Amino acid sequence: MQPLYEGKAKQLFPGPQPDTVIVFFKDSVTAGDGKKRATISGKGELAAQISIKLFELLKETVPSHYMKQLDVRSFLAKRVEIVPLEVVVRNLAAGSIVKRLGLSRGQPFQPPLVEFFYKSDPLGDPLICPTHIRAMGIATDEEISQMADCALRANALLREYFAGLGLVLVDMKFEFGRTPLGELLLADEISPDTMRLWDARTNESLDKDVFREDKGDLLITYREVARRMGL
Amino acid sequence: MQPLYEGKAKQLFPGPQPDTVIVFFKDSVTAGDGKKRATISGKGELAAQISIKLFELLKETVPSHYMKQLDVRSFLAKRVEIVPLEVVVRNLAAGSIVKRLGLSRGQPFQPPLVEFFYKSDPLGDPLICPTHIRAMGIATDEEISQMADCALRANALLREYFAGLGLVLVDMKFEFGRTPLGELLLADEISPDTMRLWDARTNESLDKDVFREDKGDLLITYREVARRMGL
Repeated sequence: MQPLYEGKAKQLFPGPQPDTVIVFFKDSVTAGDGKKRATISGKGELAAQISIKLFELLKETVPSHYMKQLDVRSFLAKRVEIVPLEVVVRNLAAGSIVKRLGLSRGQPFQPPLVEFFYKSDPLGDPLICPTHIRAMGIATDEEISQMADCALRANALLREYFAGLGLVLVDMKFEFGRTPLGELLLADEISPDTMRLWDARTNESLDKDVFREDKGDLLITYREVARRMGL
Repeated sequence: MQPLYEGKAKQLFPGPQPDTVIVFFKDSVTAGDGKKRATISGKGELAAQISIKLFELLKETVPSHYMKQLDVRSFLAKRVEIVPLEVVVRNLAAGSIVKRLGLSRGQPFQPPLVEFFYKSDPLGDPLICPTHIRAMGIATDEEISQMADCALRANALLREYFAGLGLVLVDMKFEFGRTPLGELLLADEISPDTMRLWDARTNESLDKDVFREDKGDLLITYREVARRMGL
């Protein structure tokens, strides 16, 4: 079957109803706007399982596109039109923001910091502020508030959940989509591909930074996260 | 006399009272974070005269550090501690934003767009959003609103003023400073060094872009702006 959409780490296929899609997790991993890439057998399954469990966990807190698990590597989701924004919530400074603003790695944000990036491969996903989002007609003021609010609520819940597993949720990226009726839903995936997790004791990375920075075996890392999650 | 502060285009000297400074305009011009630089005899005088006239014009609308003209190249100002932000108001897309967000040069913003940049030479003055300004303790929410509001009011007045001289005010950069009592004042300078002005008929640049992009003689350009302003 032809995918409706082919992303870097996922494929979307038509679902059984016209307003549904099947989200299938590929074994590929990319970093640095796709400049670094690899195929790791088993990675898709792990990212899928973790993502499914986290969407289940968020069910009562944040409305999302997730409907139900289909098999070990895919789930059924509501069909949405993705808002071209990455909504990043940061609990501690890490990654791009450290260099961009001259901050110290690990420096806490209290309250957590929300950032928006404009999803555009040719532009390199630049930082944008609510004023730009409004001026460019990407989302309304109400939608911007709603996305920030959902992202913060999801972050609070997941941060506590991971703390119980001896993991620090450093930051995470959310994407949102609009249903045909205009409802805004949390979309995409929620996995160590889209967040930074540090071991609470050793500060060791248990996320895609292992691949980004060649710090070890990604599969072993994702397996460890899954194990702590009881998967 | 030793300056209190030496900037790229200005020097600050102690004023006659301890809460005042003398703002002296140098003949230097720089672009690209100081990578491109030149000395143009007469430029300081023109930038000073234009700046003084524009501060006088804004007197009733926006509180500023400007007190009075001292001579052809300097004015007396209240002593303030500069907030490390560049507050940019854009009426039309030009310069950095065009590349950064993939916009069309000349595309209008309605209402005008306000952007904040973090003044830091080593970081290259990165874009920051109100959330960062708050998180980094650079300014309070109230100060952020006040700066945006002052910048928009100054822009509205100057845009109309320049329109009457056959000039389009494309964008401009403001800086603010705090008095010892915590009052926020418009500071720095207001000249073709800190704004983009296009001839309303030909769209020709009448500002520092002439130097940035080697489009002609900066002194002739600034003289033309001064001439239209009746200086």
